[in-house]
Amino acid sequence: MAGNTFGNVLKVMTFGESHGVGLGAVIDGIPAGIKISAREIQHELDRRRPGQSKVTTARQEADRVEILSGIFEGKTLGTPIALLIRNADAKSGDYSKLKNLFRPGHADLAWQKKFGIRDFRGGGRSSGRETVARVAAGALARKIIKAKKIKIIAYAKEIAGIGSSKFDPKVIEKNSVRAADAIAAKKMERAILEAKKAGDSVGGVIEILISNVPAGIGDPVFDKISAKLGAALLSIGGVKGVEFGVGFAAAKLRGSEMNDEPTSLKAKRTNRGGGISGGITDGSEIVIRIVVRPTASISIQQKTVDNRGRSKKIRIAGRHDPCLVPRIIPVAEAMVALTLADLILKSKTDRA
Amino acid sequence: MAGNTFGNVLKVMTFGESHGVGLGAVIDGIPAGIKISAREIQHELDRRRPGQSKVTTARQEADRVEILSGIFEGKTLGTPIALLIRNADAKSGDYSKLKNLFRPGHADLAWQKKFGIRDFRGGGRSSGRETVARVAAGALARKIIKAKKIKIIAYAKEIAGIGSSKFDPKVIEKNSVRAADAIAAKKMERAILEAKKAGDSVGGVIEILISNVPAGIGDPVFDKISAKLGAALLSIGGVKGVEFGVGFAAAKLRGSEMNDEPTSLKAKRTNRGGGISGGITDGSEIVIRIVVRPTASISIQQKTVDNRGRSKKIRIAGRHDPCLVPRIIPVAEAMVALTLADLILKSKTDRA
Amino acid sequence: MAGNTFGNVLKVMTFGESHGVGLGAVIDGIPAGIKISAREIQHELDRRRPGQSKVTTARQEADRVEILSGIFEGKTLGTPIALLIRNADAKSGDYSKLKNLFRPGHADLAWQKKFGIRDFRGGGRSSGRETVARVAAGALARKIIKAKKIKIIAYAKEIAGIGSSKFDPKVIEKNSVRAADAIAAKKMERAILEAKKAGDSVGGVIEILISNVPAGIGDPVFDKISAKLGAALLSIGGVKGVEFGVGFAAAKLRGSEMNDEPTSLKAKRTNRGGGISGGITDGSEIVIRIVVRPTASISIQQKTVDNRGRSKKIRIAGRHDPCLVPRIIPVAEAMVALTLADLILKSKTDRA
Amino acid sequence: MAGNTFGNVLKVMTFGESHGVGLGAVIDGIPAGIKISAREIQHELDRRRPGQSKVTTARQEADRVEILSGIFEGKTLGTPIALLIRNADAKSGDYSKLKNLFRPGHADLAWQKKFGIRDFRGGGRSSGRETVARVAAGALARKIIKAKKIKIIAYAKEIAGIGSSKFDPKVIEKNSVRAADAIAAKKMERAILEAKKAGDSVGGVIEILISNVPAGIGDPVFDKISAKLGAALLSIGGVKGVEFGVGFAAAKLRGSEMNDEPTSLKAKRTNRGGGISGGITDGSEIVIRIVVRPTASISIQQKTVDNRGRSKKIRIAGRHDPCLVPRIIPVAEAMVALTLADLILKSKTDRA
Repeated sequence: MAGNTFGNVLKVMTFGESHGVGLGAVIDGIPAGIKISAREIQHELDRRRPGQSKVTTARQEADRVEILSGIFEGKTLGTPIALLIRNADAKSGDYSKLKNLFRPGHADLAWQKKFGIRDFRGGGRSSGRETVARVAAGALARKIIKAKKIKIIAYAKEIAGIGSSKFDPKVIEKNSVRAADAIAAKKMERAILEAKKAGDSVGGVIEILISNVPAGIGDPVFDKISAKLGAALLSIGGVKGVEFGVGFAAAKLRGSEMNDEPTSLKAKRTNRGGGISGGITDGSEIVIRIVVRPTASISIQQKTVDNRGRSKKIRIAGRHDPCLVPRIIPVAEAMVALTLADLILKSKTDRA
Repeated sequence: MAGNTFGNVLKVMTFGESHGVGLGAVIDGIPAGIKISAREIQHELDRRRPGQSKVTTARQEADRVEILSGIFEGKTLGTPIALLIRNADAKSGDYSKLKNLFRPGHADLAWQKKFGIRDFRGGGRSSGRETVARVAAGALARKIIKAKKIKIIAYAKEIAGIGSSKFDPKVIEKNSVRAADAIAAKKMERAILEAKKAGDSVGGVIEILISNVPAGIGDPVFDKISAKLGAALLSIGGVKGVEFGVGFAAAKLRGSEMNDEPTSLKAKRTNRGGGISGGITDGSEIVIRIVVRPTASISIQQKTVDNRGRSKKIRIAGRHDPCLVPRIIPVAEAMVALTLADLILKSKTDRA
Repeated sequence: MAGNTFGNVLKVMTFGESHGVGLGAVIDGIPAGIKISAREIQHELDRRRPGQSKVTTARQEADRVEILSGIFEGKTLGTPIALLIRNADAKSGDYSKLKNLFRPGHADLAWQKKFGIRDFRGGGRSSGRETVARVAAGALARKIIKAKKIKIIAYAKEIAGIGSSKFDPKVIEKNSVRAADAIAAKKMERAILEAKKAGDSVGGVIEILISNVPAGIGDPVFDKISAKLGAALLSIGGVKGVEFGVGFAAAKLRGSEMNDEPTSLKAKRTNRGGGISGGITDGSEIVIRIVVRPTASISIQQKTVDNRGRSKKIRIAGRHDPCLVPRIIPVAEAMVALTLADLILKSKTDRA
Repeated sequence: MAGNTFGNVLKVMTFGESHGVGLGAVIDGIPAGIKISAREIQHELDRRRPGQSKVTTARQEADRVEILSGIFEGKTLGTPIALLIRNADAKSGDYSKLKNLFRPGHADLAWQKKFGIRDFRGGGRSSGRETVARVAAGALARKIIKAKKIKIIAYAKEIAGIGSSKFDPKVIEKNSVRAADAIAAKKMERAILEAKKAGDSVGGVIEILISNVPAGIGDPVFDKISAKLGAALLSIGGVKGVEFGVGFAAAKLRGSEMNDEPTSLKAKRTNRGGGISGGITDGSEIVIRIVVRPTASISIQQKTVDNRGRSKKIRIAGRHDPCLVPRIIPVAEAMVALTLADLILKSKTDRA
């Protein structure tokens, strides 16, 4: 296995288990001379942090980042930047009874079959806690993105079947579910708390909007930006689908309805393609949606098997998010930032 | 740019323009000692070939494959296998008037902005014809897949808004649209021909089912099999979304409805996750759906701009598929085969 | 196995067996907009071509290159450039008796143990003929090098124990051994012909000088330019060692003798480091030497074993170069060009 | 820049500056289920540690390794193993006066030109201290090597012009210079101390012997094991050349002298090729020699320039090894182990 590296020019390797010493990322390929402070990284980690509202897990993790290398006098050196976040509130005791039991909806059994060994404490590396390293690395990628004036907005478009009827980006960071519609946000929060009370969980849809992307990013054939962004987002645990522009609705359109007619060398009448033409950015806003499954960890009793295949009952007691959407939002943004930064750096070699 | 390589252990590099000398693929990393004949590769190319039915383009291409290397006395040598398919019926004259005009829904303008130069004849490398090399390479990957008894079925689940009401895999290769429902297939064909007559095109949804996949394939974190398959499929021109298992429907489910409860070490009560748990195969059938946009090339008049940004009218005259679904099906299968073969080879190093 | 790809940003995949259909290369990552003609590639192939003088093999190969993709109206498109050189004078009959016999000094036995199968005709892919694809690809890399005014000179510094006493680059392409000393060249030629007459072969040393390299190329730690150039040159069959600057002589120097003192921000008093400081180019001339073993194929009778391990006698009859040095020179240049072009493109992302 | 990653199947990313927080490595692709203890890693670090004898630097670094991830209940999980070694005795004050001065023989000026910024304290990431992370990672690779019964021995073959006249591996770890000849060792030590007293430094040659390597490791063409080992060793700071088997002496041999005649399917009469045939291991002992330049940091006064190009005098005061050979030996072993482990894992996919 060597699946813990992401990117080509900008390469990230992450590590760490949910209940081990800590989690971290090493980022190689960050250009030299970029100003960066621990505070900027911490800001993103705080957005993902557990225990930030009543709809997230009660696990208490300060998630303080330590910068181990690559930054000197406030600037990137061009050398790898290593980031470490130590685990604090890892109650491993909660998990001992799960040692020989496979939680439904989790990777436990598949992992056991693959490796023949697993860290059963909180899912080990298959835990959602793994994403803290992505967010830390993403904070560095954001610096490259921002220098290009690119803006990434992600928000809860739908939770527990409740959609949004308006789009007001200013309210996103002001409600517990990160919706762009303050009224829908309240309904979503209520639905989450209801599910939580019932020992259950809910799913949702996140929309990601990326503006000011220069035309010409992404490569033809296998490295289309849609393929790269798709892989980046589908690599987040719990994401079961991704679509661009009109997405699955394209199945019912005709070519004459789907085609975006250029009105100038910079603009198109419509944006059904979602800012991507033939796998390359066309200068319009990139529009992506991902679906997030309901949290697998629920306290309702479920059936499963143990390591000998015997039928067992299971009730997952730990502290879990009843809906993954709010905390996956900064993770999705991080993955988008890492992908874009990598492709933007790569695009420097497009022309002679 | 270096986006024409796919895979890690099994690495494919493809090349070629729609109206150039030809298209091809070099496949590095195929294990030694596998029996393979040109006939097996040709069989897959024939399934993708233009002109095979009235719903496909009238462009006549025999698409004969020439094996240039890597096979000796009917077996793979462990050296790269190079495959070449020469272009025959490339009517480049049709395209001269498109030299300075950007076709709506195509990559023309994005490509021009990226590279400052493009082969305007039939879209050059951005043409769907590029996929002939994927299918050729995929035929080799299939040999690795088949040795594991893995079976890949792909079919048109929906075209022009017409869905399927039954699943009969035997009929797939017997109807022009590759549906798994003979009656729906006729309706779909009719809808395509109607759109064609109107100078328009239609989209659809392809479902891909992969059975007999051993548990433990795919890697945690960034190289989840969903991320890898997602990237593989989203790299096909015209694909605007991908989902696994229940896919986007997961947004409306509760955890108690979504979780697949194991009933033994090999089976689960349900398969909502689509054969993937935490990014690793769990032994159940892998279920994927992709959405294919309506063909961008339509003969209805559209508005666009020329290379100076001046408003122009355009009518695309060439020979085009009014629906991409039937011919993308073998391409999607090829990408799935390449992805699985690569991950299966990689999984040989999972354990000590 | 997937060892047929070279480079990162500029990626080359080569293919082909000595007595198969042909040999070739696909080059991905060449920037768009570079003027290139088949003639320029052919020029390099002609420098490597067999049968060019009495000290090279009598095998007759025109080695005509066919460009299959990636070039449009005389310029690179930014898409992969595929090059094909068909085999013409492949007398496979010569080799049938070698089917079950392992030639001393060749890869036959190691290859058989690795893959369990091999193309015994002329060594298949382990033949020196493989390098024709490197030279073709290198001709493209040279365009990127030349645009930077970088100049690569390689010459026979020593053959069969005969060294050079002067360095006159103008004579290199004017003598059969590619020495930079016209008088030594004659002695070297005579030594080669003598060895040939005796059914034997000789080795030598090639020196490579690269001038006008900008400072700052190559990356710290694992991707030092010495490591990259070293790997590139050691990947050529028959090369058994490589050294930079004073090379192995450094073992006997003191720090005060070895250190190159800067005399300005652009110049150093001496160049013992050979243009490389800490793995990064420092602006001085890069100085490399490689040692080339005597050709393994000799017609003197040798002892060996067959595929059952039985003792056998062998006399290699084919047409072989009695000294590899003259024809490896353009190959070494090609590998240097590919390495530099790759690192130069990569260096575009060094700074913010 | 992204040059801090090594390997393909077994991938290592290292990080850290000489006078920063610490140094470390993340190793991805280690198979699951391998027993490993911190003690085994520490053992290798201790062999490289500064201050271990009178011929090494007086810098005091305990170099205690902390395992951050990837090991659970004493076994590898198949997830990345992150290792951290914090810097302790980093006297940064020593370096402030070097802020605007470029040390002869060092990467300072080349680095400045590349990145426009550098951590001048002890060379930052260009310091030899960087290799502590290689040794830590190599200790893990050794586990894979050892499971195959492969044995790596490296020793000082020559220091300051003093060669060895016998080879007794038992004495290597028992003398301060790691020679395999106890008497020569004393002479070498004396020569080093003499140079040190004079404020100067000396170079040498390290020989590396690898036994019990199975035949068939390494890949044809670009990934020959000689190319891979060559790159691995040339990536160590101070190494200016590498040779295999008879190495540079091959230039003076005839084919009939150089060729190793097989005497059975497992043995050869001689081993001039150094265990490598056509880039693939042939089962004989691998024989490698590298040349190590004299330490660049010397206290003798030298000439240089400052950041404005003005002529300056410099005397390097810090605590430095007067000869790099003894401490590079465990580093070279680590790089060999990493290379072999990577290629051995890769070879699992050679055959169907």
